[in-house]
Amino acid sequence: MMPDNMKQNKPINKVFIATSMDGYIADRDGGIGWLDTIPEINTIDSGYDAFTSEIDAFVFGRVTFETLCSFDMDWFYTKPVFVVSNTLDEIPQKYKDKAFLIKGTVPEILAHVHQKGYYRLYIDGGGLIQNFLKEDMIDELVITTIPVLLGGGTPLFSSLPEQLNFECKRTTLYLDAIVQNHYVRKRQSL
Amino acid sequence: MMPDNMKQNKPINKVFIATSMDGYIADRDGGIGWLDTIPEINTIDSGYDAFTSEIDAFVFGRVTFETLCSFDMDWFYTKPVFVVSNTLDEIPQKYKDKAFLIKGTVPEILAHVHQKGYYRLYIDGGGLIQNFLKEDMIDELVITTIPVLLGGGTPLFSSLPEQLNFECKRTTLYLDAIVQNHYVRKRQSL
Repeated sequence: MMPDNMKQNKPINKVFIATSMDGYIADRDGGIGWLDTIPEINTIDSGYDAFTSEIDAFVFGRVTFETLCSFDMDWFYTKPVFVVSNTLDEIPQKYKDKAFLIKGTVPEILAHVHQKGYYRLYIDGGGLIQNFLKEDMIDELVITTIPVLLGGGTPLFSSLPEQLNFECKRTTLYLDAIVQNHYVRKRQSL
Repeated sequence: MMPDNMKQNKPINKVFIATSMDGYIADRDGGIGWLDTIPEINTIDSGYDAFTSEIDAFVFGRVTFETLCSFDMDWFYTKPVFVVSNTLDEIPQKYKDKAFLIKGTVPEILAHVHQKGYYRLYIDGGGLIQNFLKEDMIDELVITTIPVLLGGGTPLFSSLPEQLNFECKRTTLYLDAIVQNHYVRKRQSL
């Protein structure tokens, strides 16, 4: 058994995301209005709070960060947010004490964030998740499927150098509509 | 209430299919060996027999039919099989009393099969399912998700002229691995 304080230093990268039945995380216009196809979606406990209670920091792609900034609401996050972008010059003044710009490859991103003392990471953003998957650096995915076919948009998944296998630890059906699956990467035992 | 014998004449088009987590029904080589990633998959009752007991006929795309023909096994189906192809000239001699070639658009296909007295149809094949979905002619989808990311292959879904909404009537987790969702098309009430 690993002592609890060592467990905290074990790197783990997790995803918690909603998709359409056809695997899109945003529609053709980049919008997420289709999430409200099930109006009662906001009445369910999706497990987001429990999930984020077990992470140390958020790592967002630029588009995800800019989408968050576009919402007219108070800053939501009580843990550090790292924004990965090779094009953004700086974090807008308003968020400078809350979000931190980082650049580089997936290993460089991880080295940087680990060095700051954050090991349990919430990875968000289509491109960023795809880059992490290409390096086989995603350990868990909680995917919440909204029962709509969009027929186009921003896909969650993209090409991979090889097949990746998972277990499905839990599946939950909400409101006869929304299915949430908790996938954990199944790597070959040594 | 509709009498049972009238229900049988109510057209319904259903899909029962397995996909990877990233929505592929065949890998980059057209193969389905990844279905056996979970070796115990053949020990579960996937509900296929119950599902097919409530259909009158199968409607397959050409690729699906040719894949079936390539298996070195006895003919499996006890109900009529219609093969949709605009390129195939005829059904191979061996299957002439079991499978029937049809051509045409989705409405033409349905008119033909209904006219033969078959109303509850099992639609199979990526291209055919996509064509039916484009015309909003799929009523139910039972999707069995194998917990692998293939990173490429033949997708189940493609572009659509408009968003299609569903309910999820049932979700089942098998072997801490395979998730089966039963989606029913949710159309606007008149």
